Amino acid sequence: MLDPKRTVAELKELRALTGDENGAQRVAFTGLWAGAREWLRGKAEAIDGVETHRDEAGNFWATLPGESEKALMIGGHIDSVPNGGWLDGCLNTMAGIEILRRISTQYDGRPPVTVRVVDWADEEGARFGKSLFGSSACSGNLDMDEARGLKDRDGISLPDALREHEIDFERVKDCGRELRNAAAYLELHIEQGPVLLDLDLPLGTVLGTFGVERHAITFRGQAAHSGSTPMNRRRDAFLAASKMSAEIYKIAERSGNGVCTIGSCTTKPGIVTSVVEECRITLDQRHLDAAALATMLREARAASEKFAQEGKVEVAWERLWQIQPILFDEQLITFADEAIAGTGAQPHRLPSGPLHDAAEVARAGVPTVMMFVQSLHGISHNKIEDTREEHLEMAVVALDKLADKAMRWIAGR
Amino acid sequence: MLDPKRTVAELKELRALTGDENGAQRVAFTGLWAGAREWLRGKAEAIDGVETHRDEAGNFWATLPGESEKALMIGGHIDSVPNGGWLDGCLNTMAGIEILRRISTQYDGRPPVTVRVVDWADEEGARFGKSLFGSSACSGNLDMDEARGLKDRDGISLPDALREHEIDFERVKDCGRELRNAAAYLELHIEQGPVLLDLDLPLGTVLGTFGVERHAITFRGQAAHSGSTPMNRRRDAFLAASKMSAEIYKIAERSGNGVCTIGSCTTKPGIVTSVVEECRITLDQRHLDAAALATMLREARAASEKFAQEGKVEVAWERLWQIQPILFDEQLITFADEAIAGTGAQPHRLPSGPLHDAAEVARAGVPTVMMFVQSLHGISHNKIEDTREEHLEMAVVALDKLADKAMRWIAGR
Repeated sequence: MLDPKRTVAELKELRALTGDENGAQRVAFTGLWAGAREWLRGKAEAIDGVETHRDEAGNFWATLPGESEKALMIGGHIDSVPNGGWLDGCLNTMAGIEILRRISTQYDGRPPVTVRVVDWADEEGARFGKSLFGSSACSGNLDMDEARGLKDRDGISLPDALREHEIDFERVKDCGRELRNAAAYLELHIEQGPVLLDLDLPLGTVLGTFGVERHAITFRGQAAHSGSTPMNRRRDAFLAASKMSAEIYKIAERSGNGVCTIGSCTTKPGIVTSVVEECRITLDQRHLDAAALATMLREARAASEKFAQEGKVEVAWERLWQIQPILFDEQLITFADEAIAGTGAQPHRLPSGPLHDAAEVARAGVPTVMMFVQSLHGISHNKIEDTREEHLEMAVVALDKLADKAMRWIAGR
Repeated sequence: MLDPKRTVAELKELRALTGDENGAQRVAFTGLWAGAREWLRGKAEAIDGVETHRDEAGNFWATLPGESEKALMIGGHIDSVPNGGWLDGCLNTMAGIEILRRISTQYDGRPPVTVRVVDWADEEGARFGKSLFGSSACSGNLDMDEARGLKDRDGISLPDALREHEIDFERVKDCGRELRNAAAYLELHIEQGPVLLDLDLPLGTVLGTFGVERHAITFRGQAAHSGSTPMNRRRDAFLAASKMSAEIYKIAERSGNGVCTIGSCTTKPGIVTSVVEECRITLDQRHLDAAALATMLREARAASEKFAQEGKVEVAWERLWQIQPILFDEQLITFADEAIAGTGAQPHRLPSGPLHDAAEVARAGVPTVMMFVQSLHGISHNKIEDTREEHLEMAVVALDKLADKAMRWIAGR
């Protein structure tokens, strides 16, 4: 019998063990993280029929073998950013453990399909600046050359830090075999934004993770004395760049549910007595639909060229980063809607702005879906991150209903 | 007999003595500047009847005593910025020397009024970051406490640098007595902008120097994740700040001939994945009319508050600097127009964006006017600064005609 209150109690227990007055401190590949993992292993091994092991990338697996090798997977990450929220990542893991308990009891330790809970290693990338380490090693997408060169603030390399936890960096991708029999992957996460809060909904079905286009845009005009240069003689790089700000709001609106952000603006010479010669802004564009994302990018480029021409300045674009949208499985999305409706809540579908481990699993070809639970302040990576206890309990129930549907679906195929 | 070609030849001689391939190098209170001053003293003392001395602030005076103690003054500055233009400041001084020659010859060394050429010390403020040193000491406006603390890049204080040139900092304002009998002050300067170039006019009469309002404007919104924050939930400080850019062009246009400049923009946290929480811009506004300047400032404030309200962000203003407009003398402005017309050129009146020594003399109550000569690239403080030789010669002739009118005006009062 599922006990959602136990999950809330266990989350509080974990907070007491590994948090302080500034928030959660379970940064991956540190002592507190390793301690949290030991605590988690104890919980998993107490479940009848469950075997545990750690794979080559440091991901933790709790497996309940079933009649079929085909596996239902439930994932999370117990690691946090420094001064992090108490629910980000570990809610997923602990809800998975509770569902494993329910299934083990219901089927006397032998369910029709194999059920596995995975706790991914270093989802946050807080120490080495590279997120989704464990899941991207497993999906095969980890860039080994890039990762090999990563260093933390003290100059310790990622391979050296891994060695302290008995992980051989050069073998991390061997863990890809864990996905061999994967038939479905489920993940529950606290929403890292305010959408469900604004809609006053406890739960949502996640359609996929946004594709991202990230560029630096540099406008170049001419420096000129602020006192002696008539307005109609100026080639003002800031004037051209500033017009992009209102424009990206129009581009995002036209796109449906895409988002665009200018996060940084720098000016040269950047002194009070000169017209701006060079203005560099960063533009981050995200959309769940690849074609819509391409349109947003094309529209932003065209706008920048129009504004540059209007202001007799030049404009140059430089791509900083890009990733395609990752769409979740249609059947599992339907099941997630039904599972949410089954708790009495109104189903709602939304995209995920941030990436999650689920995106890596989906990229590896495993049918995947996520559910979000409402975040009280619409904020994450912060000690004030929180969710109402009744919503946490509803989330565990909804994930359990989803797991049940997915297990029957896998068994029936 | 006035010889404008001699002035051009002397300017070239000075350039050869004190410039290099990067431009003029006569930074005040350096060895090259002192050498230029010695060269200037030789030119002045060769004129019949002329006495020279240096005042307490290091300003150089060449005086031709006349029947009346009432003095016509012609001013300039032989100091330059590093890598400066060959005409900025020294055209004024050398034209004054040529006019002193003409008057001395015409009146056999004893004109009806006293005629003086002054070469102000450290107009540019290139070494200590404070312009108009010598003229503001003379006008009494120099802020002694501020100037006492100024240091150059090597940590040498202004008082110590002055001591090397045998100037006692604490006594610099004693030179105010030099203005006791001042009846009119004239200054010729290369325009530091493109107005005369655009109008295809060689010369212009300067109406005064702009008043300046200089502020930092800080918009404060909220940082938020670029992927998970819907557009309509954002409190984007950059969006509000960016709207100021196009707005100041409208404000300047409505003002008649004022100018507004946003010279700098900084963003916090200033990262590609976050909505901008804090955006600080600088605003420099200038106008010749005090009421119009106040209107421009009021309109900019109102716009900033409107944009802040629209974007649900806060806005705060901080004044960085301010100076009132300084208007030149109406009678002398009329004389300058007539003098320009006398050379065959079309008279044109324009304000000065940058400050000049003339502004300090005008603030001290001396009837003052300036003339500008066209700058070929509309640019100053740069080695490419230049003026056609025929325009330089016309400028010397026009200043001479103006000096003649002013002398008769002084004598007749």
